[in-house]
Amino acid sequence: MPKPTDFELAEVEVGDPVDGQVLIRNAFMSVDPYMRGRMNDVKSYVPPYQLGEPLQGGAVGEVVASRNDRIAEGDWVTHQLGWREVAVSDGRGLMKVDASLAPPQSYLSVLGMPGLTAYVGLLDIGQPKEGETVFVSGAAGAVGSTAGQIARIKGCRVIGSAGSDEKVAWLRDELGFDQAFNYKSASLQEELAAGIDVYFDNVGGQQLEAAIFALRTYGRIVACGSISRYNDTAPSPGPRNMHMIVTKRLRMQGFIIFDHNDRHPDFVRVVSGWMRDGSLKHRETIVDGLERAPEALIGLLEGKNTGKMLVSL
Amino acid sequence: MPKPTDFELAEVEVGDPVDGQVLIRNAFMSVDPYMRGRMNDVKSYVPPYQLGEPLQGGAVGEVVASRNDRIAEGDWVTHQLGWREVAVSDGRGLMKVDASLAPPQSYLSVLGMPGLTAYVGLLDIGQPKEGETVFVSGAAGAVGSTAGQIARIKGCRVIGSAGSDEKVAWLRDELGFDQAFNYKSASLQEELAAGIDVYFDNVGGQQLEAAIFALRTYGRIVACGSISRYNDTAPSPGPRNMHMIVTKRLRMQGFIIFDHNDRHPDFVRVVSGWMRDGSLKHRETIVDGLERAPEALIGLLEGKNTGKMLVSL
Repeated sequence: MPKPTDFELAEVEVGDPVDGQVLIRNAFMSVDPYMRGRMNDVKSYVPPYQLGEPLQGGAVGEVVASRNDRIAEGDWVTHQLGWREVAVSDGRGLMKVDASLAPPQSYLSVLGMPGLTAYVGLLDIGQPKEGETVFVSGAAGAVGSTAGQIARIKGCRVIGSAGSDEKVAWLRDELGFDQAFNYKSASLQEELAAGIDVYFDNVGGQQLEAAIFALRTYGRIVACGSISRYNDTAPSPGPRNMHMIVTKRLRMQGFIIFDHNDRHPDFVRVVSGWMRDGSLKHRETIVDGLERAPEALIGLLEGKNTGKMLVSL
Repeated sequence: MPKPTDFELAEVEVGDPVDGQVLIRNAFMSVDPYMRGRMNDVKSYVPPYQLGEPLQGGAVGEVVASRNDRIAEGDWVTHQLGWREVAVSDGRGLMKVDASLAPPQSYLSVLGMPGLTAYVGLLDIGQPKEGETVFVSGAAGAVGSTAGQIARIKGCRVIGSAGSDEKVAWLRDELGFDQAFNYKSASLQEELAAGIDVYFDNVGGQQLEAAIFALRTYGRIVACGSISRYNDTAPSPGPRNMHMIVTKRLRMQGFIIFDHNDRHPDFVRVVSGWMRDGSLKHRETIVDGLERAPEALIGLLEGKNTGKMLVSL
């Protein structure tokens, strides 16, 4: 588990933008589980963080000065320029967002990477059919809460797990999950006893094993993340029932959302529609101030967020 | 591990066939890893064996008397009527085979269920592309030896693992595997260090974990079997690197060959062509006599066979 002392707050000089550049004042920074993986010095799908460099991650901000023809002062943009209050960019990697359509921070959550992850993971990888049962772990997180609601909208029976009774109540009473349980106190076996068809895995570990037991023939596992393992100091054993992948003809498929940007236009159109008509809800847990960003990340790994974890600036 | 004393040889009266029936004299019985699973009293894709009943399994025999219009005396048929010397059938579940095209026992191995398993598993589930590297565990078995050769025919680099140096030599020198190793003495990590794209898993356990480490991005795992686990008396931990299914975007898919009988005509046409032109070879390990069938099954689970394990009658 990262400690606050692993982080350092630094003041650096940010120059005025030169020709082609813009100056962005960040309003919100995104705090996401995958960031923990980048703190390990191993080769993976994104390079590890470097000591002494700012953490990379998503942010949304307003352009406060522009010497770039395609971006105007007052535009809102998302970017990956890291955890900082202001940033200078030559425009590459910036995406303009419509702050009149939805609050800017929505583009870091339900209309951003976590939302797209839920959309592609559930629909393209999980391929649930109407009437099937979908189990989502980490269901009160940004990805899980969206995935579960999309499954409900598509006519599935939805089961969600989360780590507190308050989260469970939110899933059941506000988000319309058919069933929700606290994985810290409930019996996984009993909660899943009626069987499932799709498992959207955000946590790995025991819940993955329980899902493999509960999956029906031709079931699918959407391998999205394994937050229960991210702070392991030694490799943990995997599910003890891997042979069921054969006998039940299961499919388990991993994905990284960067590979699926072609789905972005369809995703924004469909999900913003669900937001407007009230069928898709979301929540944010906001920690205020750059100096509290480490606390937000540690809190995320401890499950302290409901919905999207953000840092406001 | 089953013991010889778990089996009983019984003599029963087999009546003459009545209208619609045929009498079959079996020539060969099939001995397959999945049979071990049916000795556990658990619900699975096929019902467990019942105490006091003959073991079910594939066999090939000659029709020696027929009162069925569609099947003639002298026809060769495969069937699932169990481990016995003679069987009476009403014709359901019999499949006529052409004993002039290939020896009858081929229809229990390379032209039968294990061959179809290799064909569908590798091509439909694994989807190897020319130039990719395919790793097959249990590569000297009936399924593995066929899967590896099909991969070679399709222009892949093929790595096989087996449990003896003799088997390894057979894979390399006779079947044309690019690389083969004895998993009992070699370092899995070193053997797979150059990376793989498809893993055809017949064994589970440590080789599955090593394959997940070695798989490249977008790699595929054909989950065919897990013979290393079939005699476990308690559930064994799974791979310690399941998180790599996400980070490397792997797909792991189980299958049971009964679901893919629609591929049978294509399979027989293509594979018999490869057999004729010499590009696909196979070997049989034959144990003679019904009374030695338990020895054959135990031997299979101990890895004593090279290629297809059969009992001749």
